[in-house]
Amino acid sequence: MAEIQPERVLSDLRTLATFGAYKSGVHRPTLSAQDIAAREWFAGRLAEADLGAAIDGIGNILGKSAAPGRKVLAGSHLESQNYAGWLDGALGCVYALEAARAIAADPATRQVGVDVAVFCDEEGHFGSFLGSRSFIGSLEERELDGALNRVTGMTMREALKVAGWSDRARLRIDPERYTGFFEAHIEQGDTLESLGLKIGIVTAIVAIWQYRLTVEGEQNHAGTTAMSRRRDAGLELVRLLGAIDARFPEICGPRTVWTTGRIELDPGEKSIIPGKAEALFQLRDSDPAVLDRLDRELNSLLERANANGVCRLGLERISASTPAVMDEPLLAALDRAAEARAPGKHIRMPSGAGHDAQWLARTLPTAMMFVPSIGGVSHHWTENTSDADLVLGAQVFTDAIVDVLMA
Amino acid sequence: MAEIQPERVLSDLRTLATFGAYKSGVHRPTLSAQDIAAREWFAGRLAEADLGAAIDGIGNILGKSAAPGRKVLAGSHLESQNYAGWLDGALGCVYALEAARAIAADPATRQVGVDVAVFCDEEGHFGSFLGSRSFIGSLEERELDGALNRVTGMTMREALKVAGWSDRARLRIDPERYTGFFEAHIEQGDTLESLGLKIGIVTAIVAIWQYRLTVEGEQNHAGTTAMSRRRDAGLELVRLLGAIDARFPEICGPRTVWTTGRIELDPGEKSIIPGKAEALFQLRDSDPAVLDRLDRELNSLLERANANGVCRLGLERISASTPAVMDEPLLAALDRAAEARAPGKHIRMPSGAGHDAQWLARTLPTAMMFVPSIGGVSHHWTENTSDADLVLGAQVFTDAIVDVLMA
Repeated sequence: MAEIQPERVLSDLRTLATFGAYKSGVHRPTLSAQDIAAREWFAGRLAEADLGAAIDGIGNILGKSAAPGRKVLAGSHLESQNYAGWLDGALGCVYALEAARAIAADPATRQVGVDVAVFCDEEGHFGSFLGSRSFIGSLEERELDGALNRVTGMTMREALKVAGWSDRARLRIDPERYTGFFEAHIEQGDTLESLGLKIGIVTAIVAIWQYRLTVEGEQNHAGTTAMSRRRDAGLELVRLLGAIDARFPEICGPRTVWTTGRIELDPGEKSIIPGKAEALFQLRDSDPAVLDRLDRELNSLLERANANGVCRLGLERISASTPAVMDEPLLAALDRAAEARAPGKHIRMPSGAGHDAQWLARTLPTAMMFVPSIGGVSHHWTENTSDADLVLGAQVFTDAIVDVLMA
Repeated sequence: MAEIQPERVLSDLRTLATFGAYKSGVHRPTLSAQDIAAREWFAGRLAEADLGAAIDGIGNILGKSAAPGRKVLAGSHLESQNYAGWLDGALGCVYALEAARAIAADPATRQVGVDVAVFCDEEGHFGSFLGSRSFIGSLEERELDGALNRVTGMTMREALKVAGWSDRARLRIDPERYTGFFEAHIEQGDTLESLGLKIGIVTAIVAIWQYRLTVEGEQNHAGTTAMSRRRDAGLELVRLLGAIDARFPEICGPRTVWTTGRIELDPGEKSIIPGKAEALFQLRDSDPAVLDRLDRELNSLLERANANGVCRLGLERISASTPAVMDEPLLAALDRAAEARAPGKHIRMPSGAGHDAQWLARTLPTAMMFVPSIGGVSHHWTENTSDADLVLGAQVFTDAIVDVLMA
């Protein structure tokens, strides 16, 4: 079996953490100077591993194996959320690189190979999964033209020009080349840690249905308008959210989550009855039937609220992704690899967060694997995983790929 | 009886509406160029009426009658809310001026007199009732030092310097001089209009108890955090506001109002469970017992929410005024005046909004009178009152003052 080199895995991860180091984490937004440097360094590591490495016109990196036999694609992303953790996407990139190196170094496996992909902007500083969508051919030039950094306001085109990559073509996947795609990631939650487990095998990446709830009432003086004549948009919104809170637990799935992330009242003054109110409301589940059921319920709660005639409520579904179901043969390979290296310490679970793998799953059999995150922390500079878990995860990841390639 | 001059009342109101004219209303923030000009003009009108007029060190104007006999104080404010109505406080200033002129012109009443007061910043561009509080001796230099314009950030001291009034003393009331204080205002609601009435006689100005509700939970990923482990600050706030909505109608008074004017979730992102939430919540009633009862209930709802242990809820009472009860003999004078000029078309009612009169009531017997506002609109440039109602109100206001002065 291709054996990974634990020190090389940890050393590469620690080197990556120096690009944009922030406390014990990193601040490495997409196409920032530190992100560009991290990409250049990683491309160099791919080249050292005899993986012909190219950075393309959207900042994606593809390192290609010269092995003659079957190949898988593996990888993740290098940029971070602002002031976030050192592992997140970097872990999946280093695991992919290590799998490629270990498989190439073992005479028993060197006829097969791993291509390593680093997708740009999974974290959405400029848009939504721009890198992986570009790679599978689901990103039009027009959307890229309009991509702006949410913080700096710089266009992605301009940022790519600064990096020196703007004149390059955007690489497209050759699906015929691969048996499948593997991505590793820290778990963004504490399921593994709280159960004392080491490996999470992702069955599906949940769909996210994002809504905007709007309420139109009548702005009025908070002192002189009797309760009976008010058309308080804020209060109607609170009542609707209360109705969701009462009803959804009765009809949701076992792992459904729903979240009101933002509420805004207009004008938002202490002595003015809000004339308008708005909320961002989100549903996540891996079962389309559950999502449909909750969507219908949401619409009927809204209808009921509108029927009383006090305010006019609106519901806009801003986006509705489909769940990305992982490939059963690849999952079985991960099961076997995990059982061999960590008997009884693995579990199948959905991913509540989005990943590049959900886009790759549209063109390749795809699987994802999680390692434990201490305290379940993610997207924060305190995010961490023990060295032992990092090393174990790299070996299980490599074993599963070998399993698939040598099958 | 002292008869007002309808054309003079309407002409003065229309002239005032030219200072900061905005559509059919005015934009005349406290100590803006247009507000300073309006004050200078009004002081000039007081002087023309033989009322020795002075603008003091906080922008208050006092016009003093030279009549030898009893006197009342009457007035209101000249500045407006942003892009607001032409009548609001200007109405009360012109009614006071007209009462002074009509009483001085009538041989039967010229031995008594009306002092006219214009209080600065009732609308709170710089603080809370700074002018009327200064006049009754309830404003310390330190608070004035700290008064900043909410929009421009300019200090009130600096704005007074621009006006040329910063070196003047602040005038203080001589309570011995007056039988009472009268203020007129448009009704900021549609009680009069909807009942076909012409005059509202204010029994009390409600107290406002202002609260800040805070919830501390735990910020987390909206995809990877199961519903059962969430400590969602926004959801706990929605539940508390729902509990208030369910309980308060059972225990409030007949005219109590309560309002959540602002809700903020932190960080306010669609995919992040809010770690903190905050709301501005306000109670108004003219009965201290009702306010106490609702305050106790609010605290006990909060205790109950804290007892479930999901989040930590806090309740801060930012301010708590006392209801200002109007003076019965002055109210009776208004009743008689209204009944004589508009038989059966007047009503006693509380004021749900705050006015300078609530501060004057601490030192003088005080009364307030409302005229109808078309559609109940206030604090908006479409605010309006028919000419006939404006004229009728001026006469009733003057008659009531004569009644009190000649009693």
